Amino acid sequence: MTVRNLLFIMFDQLRADHLGCYGHPYLRTPNFDALAKRGVRFTRSFVQSGVCGPSRMSSYTGRYVSSHGATWNRVPLPIDEVTLGEYLRTGGLGLDLIGKSHVTSDRHGARRLHLDEDGDLGRSLMEGSFRLIDRYDGHHAEPLGGYAESLRRRGYDSADPWTDYVIAAETPDGRVVSGWQMRNVNLPARVREEDSETAYTTDEAIHYLRERGDTPWALHLSYVKPHWPYLAPSPYHKRYRRDQCLPVKRHPAELQQAHPVLKAYRAQEECANFMRDEVIDRVRPAYQGLIAQLDDHLGRLWEELDRLGRWKDTIIVLTSDHGDYLGDHWLGEKELFHDTIQRVPYILYDPSDQAQATRGKVFDHWVEAVDTVPTLLDALGLPLPQHRLEGRSLLGWTRDKPAASEGWRTAVFSELDYAYRQARLLLGRRPDACHAWMVRTADWKYVHWQGYRPQLFNLRDDPDEFFDLGEEPAHDDVRSAMQARLLQWFGDLRHRTSVTLPEVEQGTHRYKEAGVFYGVW
Amino acid sequence: MTVRNLLFIMFDQLRADHLGCYGHPYLRTPNFDALAKRGVRFTRSFVQSGVCGPSRMSSYTGRYVSSHGATWNRVPLPIDEVTLGEYLRTGGLGLDLIGKSHVTSDRHGARRLHLDEDGDLGRSLMEGSFRLIDRYDGHHAEPLGGYAESLRRRGYDSADPWTDYVIAAETPDGRVVSGWQMRNVNLPARVREEDSETAYTTDEAIHYLRERGDTPWALHLSYVKPHWPYLAPSPYHKRYRRDQCLPVKRHPAELQQAHPVLKAYRAQEECANFMRDEVIDRVRPAYQGLIAQLDDHLGRLWEELDRLGRWKDTIIVLTSDHGDYLGDHWLGEKELFHDTIQRVPYILYDPSDQAQATRGKVFDHWVEAVDTVPTLLDALGLPLPQHRLEGRSLLGWTRDKPAASEGWRTAVFSELDYAYRQARLLLGRRPDACHAWMVRTADWKYVHWQGYRPQLFNLRDDPDEFFDLGEEPAHDDVRSAMQARLLQWFGDLRHRTSVTLPEVEQGTHRYKEAGVFYGVW
Repeated sequence: MTVRNLLFIMFDQLRADHLGCYGHPYLRTPNFDALAKRGVRFTRSFVQSGVCGPSRMSSYTGRYVSSHGATWNRVPLPIDEVTLGEYLRTGGLGLDLIGKSHVTSDRHGARRLHLDEDGDLGRSLMEGSFRLIDRYDGHHAEPLGGYAESLRRRGYDSADPWTDYVIAAETPDGRVVSGWQMRNVNLPARVREEDSETAYTTDEAIHYLRERGDTPWALHLSYVKPHWPYLAPSPYHKRYRRDQCLPVKRHPAELQQAHPVLKAYRAQEECANFMRDEVIDRVRPAYQGLIAQLDDHLGRLWEELDRLGRWKDTIIVLTSDHGDYLGDHWLGEKELFHDTIQRVPYILYDPSDQAQATRGKVFDHWVEAVDTVPTLLDALGLPLPQHRLEGRSLLGWTRDKPAASEGWRTAVFSELDYAYRQARLLLGRRPDACHAWMVRTADWKYVHWQGYRPQLFNLRDDPDEFFDLGEEPAHDDVRSAMQARLLQWFGDLRHRTSVTLPEVEQGTHRYKEAGVFYGVW
Repeated sequence: MTVRNLLFIMFDQLRADHLGCYGHPYLRTPNFDALAKRGVRFTRSFVQSGVCGPSRMSSYTGRYVSSHGATWNRVPLPIDEVTLGEYLRTGGLGLDLIGKSHVTSDRHGARRLHLDEDGDLGRSLMEGSFRLIDRYDGHHAEPLGGYAESLRRRGYDSADPWTDYVIAAETPDGRVVSGWQMRNVNLPARVREEDSETAYTTDEAIHYLRERGDTPWALHLSYVKPHWPYLAPSPYHKRYRRDQCLPVKRHPAELQQAHPVLKAYRAQEECANFMRDEVIDRVRPAYQGLIAQLDDHLGRLWEELDRLGRWKDTIIVLTSDHGDYLGDHWLGEKELFHDTIQRVPYILYDPSDQAQATRGKVFDHWVEAVDTVPTLLDALGLPLPQHRLEGRSLLGWTRDKPAASEGWRTAVFSELDYAYRQARLLLGRRPDACHAWMVRTADWKYVHWQGYRPQLFNLRDDPDEFFDLGEEPAHDDVRSAMQARLLQWFGDLRHRTSVTLPEVEQGTHRYKEAGVFYGVW
């Protein structure tokens, strides 16, 4: 069957190791796992940044962070960056959004070009070319948004029902407390499960699918969970006990001679708190509960695809924008370069007949977030703008074409810009000198920091990344080799984006036709 | 005196070693030298590319080629790139253009943003924000341009007087021959000297200066010479004899085990021709004649500045976009990484009283083309957009401020994209894999090629760059060190251009004020 529809499902802050199919020993995720059985699952999928905004912009543009330039959450996506939505629109299809995009509008860029931000084009570009069914970013109060309105319609009487119900809980003695405070996330959210963010988002998706019927569609279904605030609605808040959570990955060696930037991160409030067992003990079960809830709602979505007969013509990508430390490596939140953060689930369901032979297969080849755009364009038969795209289509894997996977990558790359973080202030650095780049191969992880020594981990001997060899003289050769890889990566970025490759081909060695005859005797 | 006016003089394809003040033993350039005596002269000034278009775009944007993306002549300057003209306009002044800019318009970018190319903004952006007094690129017939029109008014009866007179000559037996053919450049051009390109351009500049009077102005005066076609008008065509030209810098070692890309370049027509002595013998005197002519016209310009009293309030940058091989290194034309091409004159005249102490000084500190924009903005007291600019103001040197030159660079960087060249076809490479980067320090030159071994030259022992140590095992450590420098350079490029540095400062560690409270216990 020809691919006609596109469903790009993103979870926010979902660790790869927190799904059943990725090996969690207790957390049951039958619906995630069901998609992996229908499609293919990549065990080595990595994001381009451990921060929502830049990671997503790589997923949406098919370009690395150093190329698209939206290096952190508050950094606008430059107006000259082309996203999946724009490519699809050019191809006659729009990309609809339900949930989170984290696009920050480039208002400087728009003003500079006198672009009418309220016109059709302006509004589209300011949203990264998503067509908003209901954008909902979910990590701060959006009291005027569709979700808040829906909650009020359902009887939650509040100007800001998110703060008062969705991320609020009640103590046994009747006090209303906030889910922002992690001490409270053992309690259930005040919102009913069927009115929670995950339920609402799924309801919207189901409504969307029904409405579109047989008309081709493209949907970015972007859940805001299991991202903080970690409060889960009942009964998910108590679905898992602490002893059903993964052991905390941390080692005293990590605190001795820690890299200066990591030391600064650990001085930030969220990390200082996540070093404490009581915090980990309270948050991890709630985090697992939120994932269990997501899994149940995925089940609803799969059923709807069944009912509508959409499995036959819909390509599905399911992934996450990064992980969550939850106390691993003596850290909280995300951003840094451990696999806990950088490695994410990546499941690709390809409905085509050519993909029959690979259903349920598991690949350990390296996948990056930048692969999503070329994969989806490829599936819809749209041209791949290779002068911009830095990823590669994954259909060679689902369709078992050896040629498509020839010369496949042997390393993945990720980046961080911590200019906006307290860590920068603690380190006394200028805001233009806080960038870092990671190279990860099967055996090694190398992190190159502006102004600081590198980090290096031997992943064969030390898969948990406890022992930083960044200054070990014995590993000079490895560091040089990893630097050479990073240098090659920088060179291979798409620097020339204002002409297409066919245009260059057509213009090669043609100066005489333009009436120019230099060097003639 | 406050700097009120800006004169940015560019020559096209002018080698640094072809000026008196830069040490040419025969070629007299008293007017170039006079500016050096009034201002400061930099002996180690390098361009960001040995090709007109990308080099100029670095001069106009203050950014390296990998950042602005106009990697070769036909590659449009992306519409999101901000040039000196736009910075000046924001500061209340426009940048006028007389002569060559080599800006290629980003029509894809304009169409994508529905920008009216015929509106004020569109027309400006399509010209790199220059205000055209008379754009004249000079390396192909422009029969409808101002220069052709002026020639017709002066009696050159032709639809294309450039082809018929400016780059044509007459043989002793009365045949009209073309200056495109280098065999003819011992003959004088058919155009009268006072009607030549250099005279015309100078006339226009003088007219401009008179017209502006005491109103502040900013002018890019951009001569198209001594760029090919090499035909000089009488008497300059015979001003210099062959034995008054520089010796040819070439060594048989360069042809043995030549780097693959250089080998491919040498198979191109212009290089194959410049390997022959008869070509060198004929072209070099003409090239020197064109420079002698430029010098005489600079004298006219200086006199006009005297007459108008403009030395007191005008900052002047005088430089070139790259050199010309003229047979050095068994090569013709330009593009590659020898100093012959990459090193250019750079003279900076600062009218301010603070610059009195440095008049006539010569500096051997490293200057790059990207320094021009910050220098000129600094001189006019305009803000430096540090989130975009990759160069540094040179006023610390003219004004003798040690703080301004603290941590001054110890290497320069240049780039090449040969995707449009026959060399690519000869090498059978894809058009997205033809980029190279040069790192040059006082002691070493290192060139990093996509897909090929590097080049390395020991400039202490081999200042003429004859002996390529790119594969010498003994120099592994040097190559590693140079790679590390290149890696640092890539990291330090301005990847984040959609927010200013003050905006980042203001937004640092402020999430709680935005109603976000992650990581709180």
